[in-house]
Amino acid sequence: MKTRKFILSEKEMPTQWYNIVADMKNKPLPTLHPGTKQPVKPEDLLGLFPKGIVEQELSTEAFIDIPEEVQDLYKVYRPTPLVRAYALEKALGTPAKIYFKNESVSPVGSHKLNSAIPQAYYNKLDGVKNITTETGAGQWGASMSYACKHFGLDLTVFMVKVSYEQKPYRKSMMNTWGANVIASPSTLTKNGREILRKHPNTTGSLGMAISEAVEVAMTQPNTKYALGSVLNHVILHQTIIGLEAEKQMEMAEAYPDIVIGCFGGGSNFSGIAFPFLKNTLREDKKIRIIAAEPASCPKLTRGTFQYDFGDTEGLTPLIPMYTLGHDFEPAAIHAGGLRYHGAGSIVSQLLKDNLIEAQAIPQLETFEAGVLFARTEGIIPAPESTHAIAVAIREALKAKEEGVSKNILFNLSGHGLIDMASYDKFFSGELTNYSVSADQILESTQRLSQIIL
Amino acid sequence: MKTRKFILSEKEMPTQWYNIVADMKNKPLPTLHPGTKQPVKPEDLLGLFPKGIVEQELSTEAFIDIPEEVQDLYKVYRPTPLVRAYALEKALGTPAKIYFKNESVSPVGSHKLNSAIPQAYYNKLDGVKNITTETGAGQWGASMSYACKHFGLDLTVFMVKVSYEQKPYRKSMMNTWGANVIASPSTLTKNGREILRKHPNTTGSLGMAISEAVEVAMTQPNTKYALGSVLNHVILHQTIIGLEAEKQMEMAEAYPDIVIGCFGGGSNFSGIAFPFLKNTLREDKKIRIIAAEPASCPKLTRGTFQYDFGDTEGLTPLIPMYTLGHDFEPAAIHAGGLRYHGAGSIVSQLLKDNLIEAQAIPQLETFEAGVLFARTEGIIPAPESTHAIAVAIREALKAKEEGVSKNILFNLSGHGLIDMASYDKFFSGELTNYSVSADQILESTQRLSQIIL
Repeated sequence: MKTRKFILSEKEMPTQWYNIVADMKNKPLPTLHPGTKQPVKPEDLLGLFPKGIVEQELSTEAFIDIPEEVQDLYKVYRPTPLVRAYALEKALGTPAKIYFKNESVSPVGSHKLNSAIPQAYYNKLDGVKNITTETGAGQWGASMSYACKHFGLDLTVFMVKVSYEQKPYRKSMMNTWGANVIASPSTLTKNGREILRKHPNTTGSLGMAISEAVEVAMTQPNTKYALGSVLNHVILHQTIIGLEAEKQMEMAEAYPDIVIGCFGGGSNFSGIAFPFLKNTLREDKKIRIIAAEPASCPKLTRGTFQYDFGDTEGLTPLIPMYTLGHDFEPAAIHAGGLRYHGAGSIVSQLLKDNLIEAQAIPQLETFEAGVLFARTEGIIPAPESTHAIAVAIREALKAKEEGVSKNILFNLSGHGLIDMASYDKFFSGELTNYSVSADQILESTQRLSQIIL
Repeated sequence: MKTRKFILSEKEMPTQWYNIVADMKNKPLPTLHPGTKQPVKPEDLLGLFPKGIVEQELSTEAFIDIPEEVQDLYKVYRPTPLVRAYALEKALGTPAKIYFKNESVSPVGSHKLNSAIPQAYYNKLDGVKNITTETGAGQWGASMSYACKHFGLDLTVFMVKVSYEQKPYRKSMMNTWGANVIASPSTLTKNGREILRKHPNTTGSLGMAISEAVEVAMTQPNTKYALGSVLNHVILHQTIIGLEAEKQMEMAEAYPDIVIGCFGGGSNFSGIAFPFLKNTLREDKKIRIIAAEPASCPKLTRGTFQYDFGDTEGLTPLIPMYTLGHDFEPAAIHAGGLRYHGAGSIVSQLLKDNLIEAQAIPQLETFEAGVLFARTEGIIPAPESTHAIAVAIREALKAKEEGVSKNILFNLSGHGLIDMASYDKFFSGELTNYSVSADQILESTQRLSQIIL
């Protein structure tokens, strides 16, 4: 009988993360201090992050050991399965072989725990007591809630207002794990009040929530900040996805021709893709790597490569990124985790160097893909993950048209059980596609601080 | 490093189900035809169920082959992990070793798929086109929705009204898999209208929903009925849980002293317990097996052993059961899957023969257990499953008090991500314990048809 799932034992779980910076010919441009415009130094970052995280953020080592305590907690849900999507293939009538890495089996329902666990761990190691963070759809906030509970840290989560309202269950999950959850923008911070003054009717954004969380971390005693995507250390932690998938594709006796991840800040995308891209960089192994972003927040396909802030109010270092401008306000799509204006410095450099590509998907196509996936493979995907599925379907249908077999691998970053209200709206015809005008992008990118590039 | 999860490969998945009837010294009393009061014959059941299911319902074979098509679909999520709950043990400071079988990893979030898949399969085999069923919390309805979609059958689900209102996301899941979901009691059936006439303000119950689903199956062409618990064939299918757990406990080099499952109609309880009870019946291996029922629906601890109907309106065969009376109206606790008046004939006989025991747990204790479990083991459990966790905690604390080490195994029948509204209510202090008066039980059991025993 055919094998559906390729499973690693706990003993086979990777014990190191992979840092692609070591293998990049063109290194990413340095992140700059917003005041001096000079490359950030470790001491610039230590106000926000613990020592272990700062080291990883600036590291150029190819492999970095995963601490035993982190490995141990990973084993609550890792290694995760790699699945051959026979039923989806059949429904599409494609000669392509479709595989997905199932990160939805984590207790929070997504890949975000992969970075939450080490971030909480390194803070604990430094004697930090309080953490602040932001969350979009709530996957990151939920992950930090569980990780902080485990390591005995207090957590405050600024949750993007539209998701706070659309996804009340995810707030409940954070509460169950003991976190304090605040709808952002809030009146609790100076930044929140300033944002509300400028945009009184805003539904919030990740950039705004970051401004609030960073402010609290900078002004409260014994408090540090944690970010769920974009930065190098987050992407490093997520490579456990692709490192496992690499072993599992070997078990399946196949190598991917195409690797796909949905794209918000880049963490799950980089996690699945970089270990395969390593083989391209080191051994010239041919592969296509596709980031699937929402058409309503198209920084990779329509953004500008420019230094920009990670947050709306301009508190973070300046990051060299493909960006729509840090005050770009994305439409209230249900894939809350993808509503972010920029991409991290590594991904941006790789895109500039044509080592990866990107596709922008309209909202309705993503839900159509999600429903087909649920009805075939059984798992109801998160609205974020449906973007990756939509691209996988596009590529599988292209393979069918061309009559060629391809190995397609995508990351199922999370399940959608907490997002059922968005499926209800899809079925009742309440969802629409959002388009972004060229003028809107021009307007928000023109405001960027004009530094080099 | 310690092993958290004991994982079987797909190749190690059991290929047969276990039928405990073969090994019972005192066989369960026969189920009776409600008209003739004679033991039901296969032909009496063929109106409601397909041939393969009827054969299993009446079988006395110890092992029954799992069809290849069923095995193949099981592999979407099976084998499921057996987990050592180190963090829970530590929080309790107990010398006991606590293990749980994690059935929450299925795409619907619970063990219910284990029977939905074969039931849909055998209907498909008989050329059936339409299925009706009932659902409490929605786990069974969601499972049948996915299984029917896979095998190309149309499904109508009567969902207990209180759960329909408390758990809208589970209705959305069923819709996503293409099922038609109706709040029960409804005005669409004769039985529904009759129930509403007698109890205009009822929040519904599984017994009522069964009456509606059975009526539709009996009156519509090419339509059969599927039940998610109680009956022998359902319990048979669920034994895959315990058969896997048996192998996994061997991997852990331990044998359980205590096995625990929450109890509604008996399917997950029997599933985890019977393969271990087999060793007791065959080899006299000592074990305690505990059913965890809600204090508000205490059929095992306070019910009567008597012939009774499986549904509220008296359409089903008469089943020899521990029962509170088929028109007992349980309080609107959040563990909707446990709001059922009776236990199946096998479990009832085993309880009568003292081969298993039962504990009734008040609602608040179950949520306290659920929160502790979430904060330690990471998984937010379904309100049903928290009953099993509560008993595991009771027994682990007892072991601590007595200073003895015990191996405790419980079934985590499902996760609670769709049930977060009940956790919200728990945290805000809105939940209470419901007590059932002796008079209430006396009243509803006195109405039972007085046949033999």
